[in-house]
Amino acid sequence: MMNFLSDNAYGVLPEILAAVAAAGDGTAASYGSDELSHTLEARLAVVFETPVAAFAVISGTAANALALATLCPPHGAIFCHAEAHIAVDECAAPEFFTHGAKLVGIEGGDGKVTPEGLTRALSHFLKGFVHHPQPAVLSLSQPTECGTLYKPDEIAALAAIAHVNGMKVHMDGARFANAIVALGVSAADASWRAGVDVLSFGATKNGAMGAEAVVFFTPADASDFAYRRKKAGHLISKMRFVSAQLVAYLADDLWLRAARTANGLAAKLAGGLSKLPGVTVVHAVEANEVFLRLPSELVLKLRNGGAQFYDWGPPQGEQSVIRLVTSFATPPQDVERFVALANSE
Amino acid sequence: MMNFLSDNAYGVLPEILAAVAAAGDGTAASYGSDELSHTLEARLAVVFETPVAAFAVISGTAANALALATLCPPHGAIFCHAEAHIAVDECAAPEFFTHGAKLVGIEGGDGKVTPEGLTRALSHFLKGFVHHPQPAVLSLSQPTECGTLYKPDEIAALAAIAHVNGMKVHMDGARFANAIVALGVSAADASWRAGVDVLSFGATKNGAMGAEAVVFFTPADASDFAYRRKKAGHLISKMRFVSAQLVAYLADDLWLRAARTANGLAAKLAGGLSKLPGVTVVHAVEANEVFLRLPSELVLKLRNGGAQFYDWGPPQGEQSVIRLVTSFATPPQDVERFVALANSE
Amino acid sequence: MMNFLSDNAYGVLPEILAAVAAAGDGTAASYGSDELSHTLEARLAVVFETPVAAFAVISGTAANALALATLCPPHGAIFCHAEAHIAVDECAAPEFFTHGAKLVGIEGGDGKVTPEGLTRALSHFLKGFVHHPQPAVLSLSQPTECGTLYKPDEIAALAAIAHVNGMKVHMDGARFANAIVALGVSAADASWRAGVDVLSFGATKNGAMGAEAVVFFTPADASDFAYRRKKAGHLISKMRFVSAQLVAYLADDLWLRAARTANGLAAKLAGGLSKLPGVTVVHAVEANEVFLRLPSELVLKLRNGGAQFYDWGPPQGEQSVIRLVTSFATPPQDVERFVALANSE
Amino acid sequence: MMNFLSDNAYGVLPEILAAVAAAGDGTAASYGSDELSHTLEARLAVVFETPVAAFAVISGTAANALALATLCPPHGAIFCHAEAHIAVDECAAPEFFTHGAKLVGIEGGDGKVTPEGLTRALSHFLKGFVHHPQPAVLSLSQPTECGTLYKPDEIAALAAIAHVNGMKVHMDGARFANAIVALGVSAADASWRAGVDVLSFGATKNGAMGAEAVVFFTPADASDFAYRRKKAGHLISKMRFVSAQLVAYLADDLWLRAARTANGLAAKLAGGLSKLPGVTVVHAVEANEVFLRLPSELVLKLRNGGAQFYDWGPPQGEQSVIRLVTSFATPPQDVERFVALANSE
Repeated sequence: MMNFLSDNAYGVLPEILAAVAAAGDGTAASYGSDELSHTLEARLAVVFETPVAAFAVISGTAANALALATLCPPHGAIFCHAEAHIAVDECAAPEFFTHGAKLVGIEGGDGKVTPEGLTRALSHFLKGFVHHPQPAVLSLSQPTECGTLYKPDEIAALAAIAHVNGMKVHMDGARFANAIVALGVSAADASWRAGVDVLSFGATKNGAMGAEAVVFFTPADASDFAYRRKKAGHLISKMRFVSAQLVAYLADDLWLRAARTANGLAAKLAGGLSKLPGVTVVHAVEANEVFLRLPSELVLKLRNGGAQFYDWGPPQGEQSVIRLVTSFATPPQDVERFVALANSE
Repeated sequence: MMNFLSDNAYGVLPEILAAVAAAGDGTAASYGSDELSHTLEARLAVVFETPVAAFAVISGTAANALALATLCPPHGAIFCHAEAHIAVDECAAPEFFTHGAKLVGIEGGDGKVTPEGLTRALSHFLKGFVHHPQPAVLSLSQPTECGTLYKPDEIAALAAIAHVNGMKVHMDGARFANAIVALGVSAADASWRAGVDVLSFGATKNGAMGAEAVVFFTPADASDFAYRRKKAGHLISKMRFVSAQLVAYLADDLWLRAARTANGLAAKLAGGLSKLPGVTVVHAVEANEVFLRLPSELVLKLRNGGAQFYDWGPPQGEQSVIRLVTSFATPPQDVERFVALANSE
Repeated sequence: MMNFLSDNAYGVLPEILAAVAAAGDGTAASYGSDELSHTLEARLAVVFETPVAAFAVISGTAANALALATLCPPHGAIFCHAEAHIAVDECAAPEFFTHGAKLVGIEGGDGKVTPEGLTRALSHFLKGFVHHPQPAVLSLSQPTECGTLYKPDEIAALAAIAHVNGMKVHMDGARFANAIVALGVSAADASWRAGVDVLSFGATKNGAMGAEAVVFFTPADASDFAYRRKKAGHLISKMRFVSAQLVAYLADDLWLRAARTANGLAAKLAGGLSKLPGVTVVHAVEANEVFLRLPSELVLKLRNGGAQFYDWGPPQGEQSVIRLVTSFATPPQDVERFVALANSE
Repeated sequence: MMNFLSDNAYGVLPEILAAVAAAGDGTAASYGSDELSHTLEARLAVVFETPVAAFAVISGTAANALALATLCPPHGAIFCHAEAHIAVDECAAPEFFTHGAKLVGIEGGDGKVTPEGLTRALSHFLKGFVHHPQPAVLSLSQPTECGTLYKPDEIAALAAIAHVNGMKVHMDGARFANAIVALGVSAADASWRAGVDVLSFGATKNGAMGAEAVVFFTPADASDFAYRRKKAGHLISKMRFVSAQLVAYLADDLWLRAARTANGLAAKLAGGLSKLPGVTVVHAVEANEVFLRLPSELVLKLRNGGAQFYDWGPPQGEQSVIRLVTSFATPPQDVERFVALANSE
């Protein structure tokens, strides 16, 4: 079975499992007052080269929705790409956590918000006009839902527009590690130095069991986050088991190595398929996701050969678009088998 | 260091850790569609001797608040003991998840709601009167916040009043295992057979890392639970790691054995302290919590000797009330040391 | 001063004022238990030729948001035109009242949702997939935000799609009277007979002081509306003063006469302007709103001459789009003056 | 029919009706941008002898819930008397508007919160402890639900405790006029000079049709009130009809004269009944409400004689407690008839 459904179909990095096992020794303060949880914040400050307020949670939806609710009042508006995960795949969790803020979807090629798109969207929201939700947050997915990347200067250009308009910038970094190793930039350059105010720092898709961190680059912004986390049932009593995952993830560049593995496999997949007749790479393969347009017949052959992956939208005539995701633990031979299968007669 | 602060200060049962490690092998469907998650529901049905709809979450607050929101409309009222965890220790999470339902606290000795107390409280809520939130749920903590237990017939008497008034019955079973081994009754007898409609089935305090199950005994009641869980960020992608904990917890009576250990240690503590001059057992020690009134001087001596525990309320004159909690992993020698210390000159 | 800003810039119909004055005599039961409030429901049943559950409120936003929240769970989705008032002009009130449901905007010419647009939008929401809000309500504005109308069979076609998909149909009838007199159909034909399940029946824009009714054509749908209205602060104690407005509005076809007046004036405006060189009617003038594209220079002349109206979007080059609204009380001579002014050298 | 059910059973003061009629002349800006609405704020500033931010709404529940939500975050706690209207008679509207804040009921004789009661209640809420909602607002009803009054120095003592604890002070002044004429103090002395931060300034019960004002004595506190009002559907389009009521209410001491009338009638009722054998005045009659304990037999006679009033709780043996409310428009002869009836053989 070749599994390219999602990186979260894979298990856990051995180093993280070992850290979880070790975390259970003896007793610890509960509800996030333990040493590992304090260590986590300190480690993130080092990784991001700046003081941060950081909070562990156990899902990306929780990270995103809590971060957004902390920065956006109920009468606020959150701008994001029309296909952003927060807009289409979280059952309107941001609307629930913010108590009814408005999500404003912005169209844009390759999953990316553009300065023009953002400016145009903002033009429909009059400042101080009570009939309109007030612009409060710009949320960017990095990598995007199309597996593409914002370069730091692209982020900076968007963040500048947001900040001029009194908004904060959120980054949904469910696959943040994949982004920065692909860009070859530091975590700081891809986040706060480019204007990001709060980051959903994902680890689950890249080898944790269930651990994400919400990282505020201006700690004062986080003043009521701890209450929101508790009130939403996301402050778990044995938090050390979550923090342990993240601390191990950050140690010895484990997170970057795991992401490099995943990205490398995606590049191999794309390389091995893109020259096939009738196959088109739909979006540039910049991280660990590959979107291909290919004959529906070939899709069938791949599935019959044991490959698992998602259709990306309904088939269009004889053509289908599929998504392939690679992970820290995808067997390299699965990639080879998949490529061979696609290239076979 | 003798830690009696809480059972959640302790780590994880080795069987559960092993199950988590094993759960990471290979790939699995994400977001709760994996085999372990399906197994969990089936296992709970066996344990409870009835078909159930069951959902894993990672905190007791999430279990309680999601269960309550599923059964209580925004204009509903939830009746519970005045000191119930849901009323005083969850930062008003139920009010958030229910979108503003009313929690009605009922006074009662030893942490227990009585039929008289419930009936009196209900008398203030007129059926069909739009100015009053409408009675929707009775929530009982088992064991109570005072470490005492409802016997099945006591639950049944309260549930009967609730049902006659068109309400559902929720049980906060954060320490459900401790309750049933102490009562010597089956899981079914302590829950649905006594009229409980939905149970927050705790495992974290009794040896899991972070795993609770919400168990609906009338599966139709759960029709929108899955959406609520997702919308609240509580559907984690690698759910198999949570379900694995619960499946291991239920296997080979691990949960019951762990609870017996904890309860036994509490009994030893109580036995070793209750005859000391000036020491009173405040509430009957029925599970794994011991509440003592003792001279503040003795409290100081115990702490100086290395014991950790909570004051329960502010000191009253020269007397203090403290809470001691034992767990599946409390070292028996810590109990012995504590008793010896208390009895020393 | 010629005021074409909005119909709500005008005052109150004398019959309605008289009814309000009369309503104050003597004492009455409070909170909607008075006779006038009961009469209102009965009168609406006659007007709509079917039993209804009807509730008076004091704003269109309240009517819409309460109606939507009654029919849409927090995990539901509400489909409407991308420019619908509920989507763009109510500060996300529906998201607040529904506790975070998703509003899905559908593009469509002349402010109208089309069957194709609705079907396409629905295709992005998988039934039973917890990551997607579940389709719950289709909301149609009648007249639309462009002053155009859905014919009964157009409503029926959209409602059929909605119902097949398990959704309810809401109609935002802030100017419902203007619509039915223009269409020349009965209130029933324009609502429940065409598949509408709940109607926000507006009166304020057409001559009331502040009175709207939420009309459920399947009374059982309204089972918790009364609680929602109370909980939102919309059950006023002297409800008779609101109900009196609506009862008077419905008496002797006052509502239809007032709407005919407004529509007639709009037709005159359009007739007197549409043939001017450089002036285009942007949307068919079907009720009491006129959208014109005209030289910005002419806009200036009209304003300098004492006319008030809104630009509809920013000027495009030398051209502007403006909206003119007529009302039950717009002085006919203001229309004449405006037309003359536009036609003057 | 002698109606003592509530002051809101009566109609409207003629001056207010006249003002409403006059407000309809000509055109006006909508949604609260009209001149009358601006005048209202200015008039309230004069009445209260300080700059204010003031907002008209149409119900007391809206006034209270919006004021509380503006001052209390979702993770906050609101302290009030256990019998406060906001706690027991608004279908948990504050919980809805605040997105799940906790209302903490404090027992106290004659409907009054005492400094001791407040201090004791606060002792259960640890500052900065995420498991506890954080004290945010003290809400006082003036007059209380028992018809009694806080003297300015009593308010000041409570407000001092609130402020020291970082809380704001809200006053539910549904019958504020009745309170200040009874106390013989200025509006300022009974509110901000005694430490009140925001006042729900009622007019409906004292002769308006449906008009209340939320008055912030520190205008900066109101920064997002306008959005909350809109989002809750409480910004009505023809706001001038609401503002007109309040402006007329404040003119020429109309509000104070009306309240004096009501209070005077209550005093007469109390005077005429209190000396009857078997009749006890339950709470001091300080404004326009009279609570009496009397033989159930006498209650029956009064009802048979045509009087309407509420039982206040269920009968206790042969005794009942009833509430009588007088208003600006209660016919004095009804009071005389009632007294005569009670005193008849």
